[in-house]
Amino acid sequence: MKIATLIGSTRTNGNTELLTDIAMEGIKHQKIYLKELSIRPIEDLRHSEGGFQIVEDDYDQIIKIFLENDIIVFATPIYWYSMSGIMKNMVDRFSHAIRDERYPQFKERLKTIETIVIAVGGDKPRIKGMPLIQQFQYTFDFLNMHFSSFIIGEAGRPGDILKDEQALSQANILNNKLKLLQNSGKSKQE
Amino acid sequence: MKIATLIGSTRTNGNTELLTDIAMEGIKHQKIYLKELSIRPIEDLRHSEGGFQIVEDDYDQIIKIFLENDIIVFATPIYWYSMSGIMKNMVDRFSHAIRDERYPQFKERLKTIETIVIAVGGDKPRIKGMPLIQQFQYTFDFLNMHFSSFIIGEAGRPGDILKDEQALSQANILNNKLKLLQNSGKSKQE
Amino acid sequence: MKIATLIGSTRTNGNTELLTDIAMEGIKHQKIYLKELSIRPIEDLRHSEGGFQIVEDDYDQIIKIFLENDIIVFATPIYWYSMSGIMKNMVDRFSHAIRDERYPQFKERLKTIETIVIAVGGDKPRIKGMPLIQQFQYTFDFLNMHFSSFIIGEAGRPGDILKDEQALSQANILNNKLKLLQNSGKSKQE
Amino acid sequence: MKIATLIGSTRTNGNTELLTDIAMEGIKHQKIYLKELSIRPIEDLRHSEGGFQIVEDDYDQIIKIFLENDIIVFATPIYWYSMSGIMKNMVDRFSHAIRDERYPQFKERLKTIETIVIAVGGDKPRIKGMPLIQQFQYTFDFLNMHFSSFIIGEAGRPGDILKDEQALSQANILNNKLKLLQNSGKSKQE
Repeated sequence: MKIATLIGSTRTNGNTELLTDIAMEGIKHQKIYLKELSIRPIEDLRHSEGGFQIVEDDYDQIIKIFLENDIIVFATPIYWYSMSGIMKNMVDRFSHAIRDERYPQFKERLKTIETIVIAVGGDKPRIKGMPLIQQFQYTFDFLNMHFSSFIIGEAGRPGDILKDEQALSQANILNNKLKLLQNSGKSKQE
Repeated sequence: MKIATLIGSTRTNGNTELLTDIAMEGIKHQKIYLKELSIRPIEDLRHSEGGFQIVEDDYDQIIKIFLENDIIVFATPIYWYSMSGIMKNMVDRFSHAIRDERYPQFKERLKTIETIVIAVGGDKPRIKGMPLIQQFQYTFDFLNMHFSSFIIGEAGRPGDILKDEQALSQANILNNKLKLLQNSGKSKQE
Repeated sequence: MKIATLIGSTRTNGNTELLTDIAMEGIKHQKIYLKELSIRPIEDLRHSEGGFQIVEDDYDQIIKIFLENDIIVFATPIYWYSMSGIMKNMVDRFSHAIRDERYPQFKERLKTIETIVIAVGGDKPRIKGMPLIQQFQYTFDFLNMHFSSFIIGEAGRPGDILKDEQALSQANILNNKLKLLQNSGKSKQE
Repeated sequence: MKIATLIGSTRTNGNTELLTDIAMEGIKHQKIYLKELSIRPIEDLRHSEGGFQIVEDDYDQIIKIFLENDIIVFATPIYWYSMSGIMKNMVDRFSHAIRDERYPQFKERLKTIETIVIAVGGDKPRIKGMPLIQQFQYTFDFLNMHFSSFIIGEAGRPGDILKDEQALSQANILNNKLKLLQNSGKSKQE
């Protein structure tokens, strides 16, 4: 069972990454910093002659993450009650990816993937982050991905997440679950 | 009373722009295509030494739109149940703008602005677009902007919005209201 | 095509009923005032020996409404951002009704029904009524009923709904649609 | 510091009550079973001559709970993605209570109260229970009550809540917090 985390933060070692690291402690996984990739905004060419065109940026790395992993963690700071712009641009490009002739297996592959969302915000995130979670649910439903769980953390200043007892507790529960899965030695691929 | 529309579409003449044009017919306003501006993602430097740094891109044009207008229309296609990535990057940068020492009046200015959201999507947008509207509400509340109304349109293929009787009716009601306001000759600035 | 409206108001001729009457003008339909029926709260006996027991109240009239109509309008004032308690008690009893051995066809029958929600509230209902609509959507999804449209009206004092241009416009659009359906002479039953 | 729990279940010893008991273990508190009280639906007489009339039922007991406690726990099973009908009828009656001339201090008293919501459902409650939590938030905001935390549990059959590790963990965190508060010997009243 292979796991990857997509970090949508714009700072390194921010609260979102910290909480994700706690959930992933001792678990073999691939960690991708979206801020280190060049991902262009989608250009909606669904209805244009010729359809979507190949975009010269790093998005193929994202596609490979989805092709090669069984569990994907979307980790994002909550900016203005929603995911960060760099994560949004990554998500928007799904519209192209599921139609990309170079990856005909991509859309089917998504159906086998389990998703987890970790989101950290400063303004009553457990309430005001609900719309964000609902949007992830709608998105995963549309793509037939299984949305297995989410953690919302509350933090303002750097390191504050370590004071959010509930988020830490949820991260530990998730950590135990993932360890059991990974140690069971079963992989969807095997 | 000055009005500006911020078009968050990635296509020209898409359904979102079409619906916005109908709402704005005969009304003097400024129209900004976000896709024609270079707007970098926010880099969260709130907690870094030195704070936010000046970013060399077109965001100052956005700031000027907010400084010079009384009503701002956020027009966005609904991509994955949320605003487009290019609009999200613009919104994310508010975090910098309200702390930008070059525009000390920006934050106060926002409190005088009335906002309108026009969003068009293809997958049951009047239900599944609700989280997006809630996020706009939370954002405008945080910034003390007055969220005066929103229109959600349903459209899949180019031009489909013209078949959405409810959205067209709402656009007409908005159009009449804005005309009355503009013709009353009163401006918050005057 | 047979239509029924379920009025969840606790006053007669309130704004909710007024808006519903406008939407139903000239349309043959059955109108049920929930406040005139005695409907007991559900008692959750799903897991009790013997299961649900027959309740001596007027709920059978509700069941018959669902068995005999093709379109059901749920019309409710928004009390505390949700449906009225008397409508909630009616909805809660679905849990019993779909297991009621006296009406084995009830659950299947629901799948053929189209639902419409009309809700009127006083505190920013188009935003703060969204959770109510989402709950109706989840409920109709669970029961495989088709949620065809909803209208949210804004009104505080008696008669105020007549000033809500948007709600009136939506009621007219709905009225035209229902007239077309009814005049087409086609009934699911026939 | 005085605490009361309002149990909105229609069964005794159901999952909602069980989870609430875990959160309240070792904590002095008053426990009210709404199903044992007779609470009539609100009759909206705000705009009628004479206004609200005294209702002959057990609602005065509810008013006293609010007058005499500092923390109120709203514990409800999730029926059709919302609170139970018997709890909804209790909430609806706030509209009368805040205008009840026999309790002129009621409305002011509410502003000092901290609220907690515990809700248990069977169909993806952590996602599909979000609208319910949002409605409680809007309600508490309107009444100027402080919504301090909520727990959503997942359970289908009797006792299932004991398998919901996340809900149990949250109940323990809440239990510790309440114990600290109660042992600190400080009361808002003192």
